[in-house]
Amino acid sequence: MKSILDYETVDYDRERHALVIIDQTKLPNDITLLSLTTAQEIWDAIYQLKVRGAPAIGVAAAFGLAALAQQISSQEKEIFLRELKEKKEFLNSARPTAVNLSWALDRMMSVCKKKKEASVTLLKNKLVEEAFLMKKEDIDVCRKIGEYGLRVLKPKDGILTHCNAGQLATCKYGTATAPIYLGQERGYQFRVYADETRPLLQGARLTAFELYSAGIDVTLLCDNMSASLMQQGAVQAVLVGCDRVAANGDTANKIGTSVVAAVAHHYQVPFYVCAPTSTIDFNTPTGKEIVIEQRNAEEVSKMWYQKPMTAEGVKIYNPAFDVTDHSLITGFITEQGIVKSPTGLLG
Amino acid sequence: MKSILDYETVDYDRERHALVIIDQTKLPNDITLLSLTTAQEIWDAIYQLKVRGAPAIGVAAAFGLAALAQQISSQEKEIFLRELKEKKEFLNSARPTAVNLSWALDRMMSVCKKKKEASVTLLKNKLVEEAFLMKKEDIDVCRKIGEYGLRVLKPKDGILTHCNAGQLATCKYGTATAPIYLGQERGYQFRVYADETRPLLQGARLTAFELYSAGIDVTLLCDNMSASLMQQGAVQAVLVGCDRVAANGDTANKIGTSVVAAVAHHYQVPFYVCAPTSTIDFNTPTGKEIVIEQRNAEEVSKMWYQKPMTAEGVKIYNPAFDVTDHSLITGFITEQGIVKSPTGLLG
Repeated sequence: MKSILDYETVDYDRERHALVIIDQTKLPNDITLLSLTTAQEIWDAIYQLKVRGAPAIGVAAAFGLAALAQQISSQEKEIFLRELKEKKEFLNSARPTAVNLSWALDRMMSVCKKKKEASVTLLKNKLVEEAFLMKKEDIDVCRKIGEYGLRVLKPKDGILTHCNAGQLATCKYGTATAPIYLGQERGYQFRVYADETRPLLQGARLTAFELYSAGIDVTLLCDNMSASLMQQGAVQAVLVGCDRVAANGDTANKIGTSVVAAVAHHYQVPFYVCAPTSTIDFNTPTGKEIVIEQRNAEEVSKMWYQKPMTAEGVKIYNPAFDVTDHSLITGFITEQGIVKSPTGLLG
Repeated sequence: MKSILDYETVDYDRERHALVIIDQTKLPNDITLLSLTTAQEIWDAIYQLKVRGAPAIGVAAAFGLAALAQQISSQEKEIFLRELKEKKEFLNSARPTAVNLSWALDRMMSVCKKKKEASVTLLKNKLVEEAFLMKKEDIDVCRKIGEYGLRVLKPKDGILTHCNAGQLATCKYGTATAPIYLGQERGYQFRVYADETRPLLQGARLTAFELYSAGIDVTLLCDNMSASLMQQGAVQAVLVGCDRVAANGDTANKIGTSVVAAVAHHYQVPFYVCAPTSTIDFNTPTGKEIVIEQRNAEEVSKMWYQKPMTAEGVKIYNPAFDVTDHSLITGFITEQGIVKSPTGLLG
């Protein structure tokens, strides 16, 4: 039987010119592949978290824009570029917090700038190839993050992670899970603790599911149980992903990350952010400037449940992300090495 | 229409000699009253959290033991006491962490010791009266906690609470909610933030429900959102209840309490434990000696949900409580006043 890890998180159908993703809202109970060709379908897939995780969103948007480019009928370059830009801006509006979405779309547009003399047909091909290149690069980046991450871990370590920065958030290996997968190949026997990550339960539905499928020793816990584990000395390191790292190291990631960071700080457990450099945004000076997406109240009160879980009318706070202060972060594990601050990557 | 606050959390039917409770596992969708007369029914109600919250468990066990006492047919005192003790020990085995369960049952047994010359019939009556007295005392204690609690709060304060230490956890007012209810009567206009409290969602199902029913400004959040709120300066104080306070001030309370405490500490938000003195256990020197109840994995992976939320076979960590180190606690709000440490209540 195929494991979830045998599926591509994000792929492209070259015949139909379609973005192909696993519908992650249906995991772990149903593995459903979606083949998306319209701008609205692709926007919805990103907004509804059918594809999620900053690196995967970036590559999905790239494949999505490549697919939409094929549908532009005009052979006139100016018209083609204007229509492409409209589609790019529409896709970019799906989610505000992860920088990879705009980063990937900007990179796709720059293909057209680089190939100034190219025909529309050639550009259409180049866009598809650029998206495939970004997918390949994402896999390379994650593998390197895995290699660097292993340098701060020991065999049998307990590792706590929050949300899903796993294979399902990237094209392979994941970011926070990359050291875990590489460690598994090398007999490290890590014990992994996965926060369930309310309200959308990416930790339960995705992280615990994919690590269990890989035969890794994984234990699921509710988001409020991390202190209990750390009190017992069960956790040697926290590894999380990120959606946008500001120039000063303040890090936006899934809501709850800054709770784990404060708890880890109190119990003196090292707290690492696994960050492809594409997630570092030197144009954003600090976390204060990062726009935090607010999501629907029913994700908290009704989604997944058989019945509503609070009284009708109760107000609900549901930010999708929070910002972890750089002072709580032990280091950033990037594909270029481990740094205390993003500025360590400059010069 | 009757509000949830118009129902008695714990009561006694003098005609049927039955413990009467609201089935809290069915809230907020259904208000169902249960009338319990057998030891197994009463044990199950406590174990399955149909009645929960340390003070309410204590009073429920007292009424429960009073009800069971009526069923003992022997008029011989020695036999009566032996059977009563068996029933007491059975009820006491339902949950290990909250001290109020054993405290209340011991107090019921001491009625029999005090009334050495009394007949079995008289003892049966005295047991019922003692349980009613405990209920009355619980209401008085909670009201006093409310009065003392108001001394550390200002109008319009934002107050975060975890789990349900509300009216549904006591006989009236609650412990952590007592200052909130009294403040509401006096126009304080508090903004209350209720952690949903996974896995059993007492914050969503009970706290948000009862406060909303009282017309209080309450906002529900997931357990991983407290840091996000505190970063914005929305929270001026954390108020929580407790299940057992050790002599040194280490406090067992609902799982996640120590997470909130570490986060509040980081953001310099005062963290108060609202503690009836019956919850303080001077026989337990520190938190290390408190037995933590571990509960069923399916509470995390399946309960409430339409479908399982993780892969079959994933290990699950599900402790019902954690221990908050006394160093993270700003003060204990008791019916005798506010103290920095339980030892402040001595002498």
